[in-house]
Amino acid sequence: MSLEVLVALCKKRGFIFQSSALYGGLQGFFDYGPLGVELKNNIKKIWWEDIVLKKENVFGLDSATILNPKVLEQSGHKDTFTDPLKDCLDCKSRFRTDEIKNDECPKCKSKKLSEERKFNLMMKTNLGPLESENGSEGFLRPETAQGIFINFKNICDTFSPKLPFGIAQTGKAYRNEITPRNFTFRTREFEQMEMEYFVLPDQADKTMDEVVAERINWWKKLGIEVQAKEQTQEELAHYAKKTVDLIFKFPHSDEELEGICNRTDFDLGSHTKAQAEFDIQAKVKENKTSTQKLAYLNEEKKWIVPFIIETSAGLDRAVLAALQSAYNEEQLEEGKSRIVLKFKKEIAPIKAAIIPLVKNNEEIQKLARKTLNFLKENKVMQVVLENTGNIGKAYRKHDEIGTPYCITIDHESIESSLESGIESVTVRNRDTMKQERVKLDKLLEYLGY
Amino acid sequence: MSLEVLVALCKKRGFIFQSSALYGGLQGFFDYGPLGVELKNNIKKIWWEDIVLKKENVFGLDSATILNPKVLEQSGHKDTFTDPLKDCLDCKSRFRTDEIKNDECPKCKSKKLSEERKFNLMMKTNLGPLESENGSEGFLRPETAQGIFINFKNICDTFSPKLPFGIAQTGKAYRNEITPRNFTFRTREFEQMEMEYFVLPDQADKTMDEVVAERINWWKKLGIEVQAKEQTQEELAHYAKKTVDLIFKFPHSDEELEGICNRTDFDLGSHTKAQAEFDIQAKVKENKTSTQKLAYLNEEKKWIVPFIIETSAGLDRAVLAALQSAYNEEQLEEGKSRIVLKFKKEIAPIKAAIIPLVKNNEEIQKLARKTLNFLKENKVMQVVLENTGNIGKAYRKHDEIGTPYCITIDHESIESSLESGIESVTVRNRDTMKQERVKLDKLLEYLGY
Repeated sequence: MSLEVLVALCKKRGFIFQSSALYGGLQGFFDYGPLGVELKNNIKKIWWEDIVLKKENVFGLDSATILNPKVLEQSGHKDTFTDPLKDCLDCKSRFRTDEIKNDECPKCKSKKLSEERKFNLMMKTNLGPLESENGSEGFLRPETAQGIFINFKNICDTFSPKLPFGIAQTGKAYRNEITPRNFTFRTREFEQMEMEYFVLPDQADKTMDEVVAERINWWKKLGIEVQAKEQTQEELAHYAKKTVDLIFKFPHSDEELEGICNRTDFDLGSHTKAQAEFDIQAKVKENKTSTQKLAYLNEEKKWIVPFIIETSAGLDRAVLAALQSAYNEEQLEEGKSRIVLKFKKEIAPIKAAIIPLVKNNEEIQKLARKTLNFLKENKVMQVVLENTGNIGKAYRKHDEIGTPYCITIDHESIESSLESGIESVTVRNRDTMKQERVKLDKLLEYLGY
Repeated sequence: MSLEVLVALCKKRGFIFQSSALYGGLQGFFDYGPLGVELKNNIKKIWWEDIVLKKENVFGLDSATILNPKVLEQSGHKDTFTDPLKDCLDCKSRFRTDEIKNDECPKCKSKKLSEERKFNLMMKTNLGPLESENGSEGFLRPETAQGIFINFKNICDTFSPKLPFGIAQTGKAYRNEITPRNFTFRTREFEQMEMEYFVLPDQADKTMDEVVAERINWWKKLGIEVQAKEQTQEELAHYAKKTVDLIFKFPHSDEELEGICNRTDFDLGSHTKAQAEFDIQAKVKENKTSTQKLAYLNEEKKWIVPFIIETSAGLDRAVLAALQSAYNEEQLEEGKSRIVLKFKKEIAPIKAAIIPLVKNNEEIQKLARKTLNFLKENKVMQVVLENTGNIGKAYRKHDEIGTPYCITIDHESIESSLESGIESVTVRNRDTMKQERVKLDKLLEYLGY
């Protein structure tokens, strides 16, 4: 399916809207509608459960999105987090160097272009009422990872974990992309799901292989197929010893959905160096080994700077990949067709739609509401009552938004209650389109939630 | 309890840390540690379930945190979202006017102060590579509400809801407070939980009363007692007809935890006016009633601009109120005492700690892990294995972080398995400190999760 079809479906059904659209939009920003937010939350929840809660040695975190500039000086972002840029000296437009072909301005075709210079992708903001004082500016974080590195010592001091252990968080990050593009694939505001795993240096290679295998399986569980691809020496970031990208076939091209990287001791080392002077002073003053440095005290009381294996996934890209993977156009009988999103049940934004067959029948309406409440009370919260009175239209809609089950309440539902004391409903399966009668007391088991 | 005690506990136990602390901190920013993030997520999850998922007429949203400046011009924030400020002409410090006493500089005591001027609390950032072009700046949103108003039309177009209906979201907001203070109470980055409820104008007063009552009960369910207090005419914001604050006794003073406000048709009206010209053009062009305006087409095909009842809660303040409400210092026997956080079970960051009584006994360790996995498989995910081998220390720790149950695995656990085939564990209740033996197959029921 083309990107245009996906963008249109997302708008039509309330998954994703262009942000600030009433005012002409804002390039590189998107709003998640009622279905998009549930899909995104479901993916995030599964990630958190699998990465943080099911593991005994991974600590959750939620650090601020705005950072002290010193953090980003030490991390290298102030110097190296740049894209190469050229100015058109005639029309004053600016372009990323790789967007310029034949040494001419893509807009006005002028050949008068400036020298290439570096454009920093970080977004800056002023803090406090004074504009030129120390501490009066902050940077919107370009990745959630830095918030993890600067909390390494907090976690060590508070929880005394043993190597290997991880720290993980989800949250917004911001990059001032010169040319945001391809819908929610490359945006200026996005959400990351990152884990930094701290290991003994000689364990890094082995851990990296394990993490790659684990992450490929995790995406598969969500219905998303990815291919591992190791970056070449030229592609590697300055801090990386080895990086494996998990590549997904996005509508516009094959691109990175998640990156797994051996960052060595670069990050903890950088932040440690910044602490060095403070550290020496503290040692002299307190006459003891300072714990200020970002190193880990092992059981033989030796300080080690651990290596970091990072796994960094884009949540917006995950939503896009889930939509893309789920999308199907199917030919039905009599020349009809349908669009159906075959989401895995766990991530479907709506788990079941309750459809009363008749709009103005009190008994049917009452049973519909009873079924709805029954599911919600049993922790199946993402359910809706679909009271349009047009069953065919309701099926088409719920196929298009990927609802795994439509539960119809009809006259037979009421009659079955009179006969056996237990109401029955008709459950339609999204993928097979088959319908089965199910007793209400067997419904949860049947749906498998 | 004093604020200092709470701050120290939050750091010691890993609830909340000062942000960018390694680099001297960043005033008004905080990082949530492993326990803080679970507590915050639990509150947010309950809010989302109660406000969005359990209601049939409330739509979830997740809009971008950076807005087109035009949105904030129309909303009035560019002109009126200010604090009054004075400069000290001698030492160049700046203060909010209400912090200045006796017309002298609080820092250098100079009497030479500037005239009062308005300081806008919004944070600005540059977008795109051009610094002075239209569309080259964005504002970090000062409230999540504006993202809701500008999506009103999207929701109407996509879901055709009937009045009354709501749109709700949680997310970050940013205010450049001149003096951030009182721990996480007044910060520059914070998270909101907001619902905007759209009603017929003549229903606004009745709805407002209902929402106030509902929200007071909601906080009570979380173990947080609030008092409703109506704002005086002088306190009201320019857009508000009536505002009721829900006041909580924070450690530093009685202050707002949530505000419920009748915003009338101010917001939809403002954004509609900005659309008016576009609207007229669209009408002429398409020769039909434009739906571009932010009004609602009722069943008699008349356009109505609904009134808005807003309920706006601070999530960071909710975490602070939950900690404060849970905090107890208790005298025990023999002159001992304990600190215990009596969280309601639903929001406790850890639901149960599994404690093997002996560290180097294989059978006991195996059963501990089995119990842990049993709970996680039954969707009680926030559980930990506490393998310190010091039961007293483990109890003190889990009292201090508010774990409702400690589950001890001992020799009797193993023996009971040999006798009856079903293992038993000792469950200690945080609040009563009483212990009871429970068979593993009755554990879930006993814990009530």
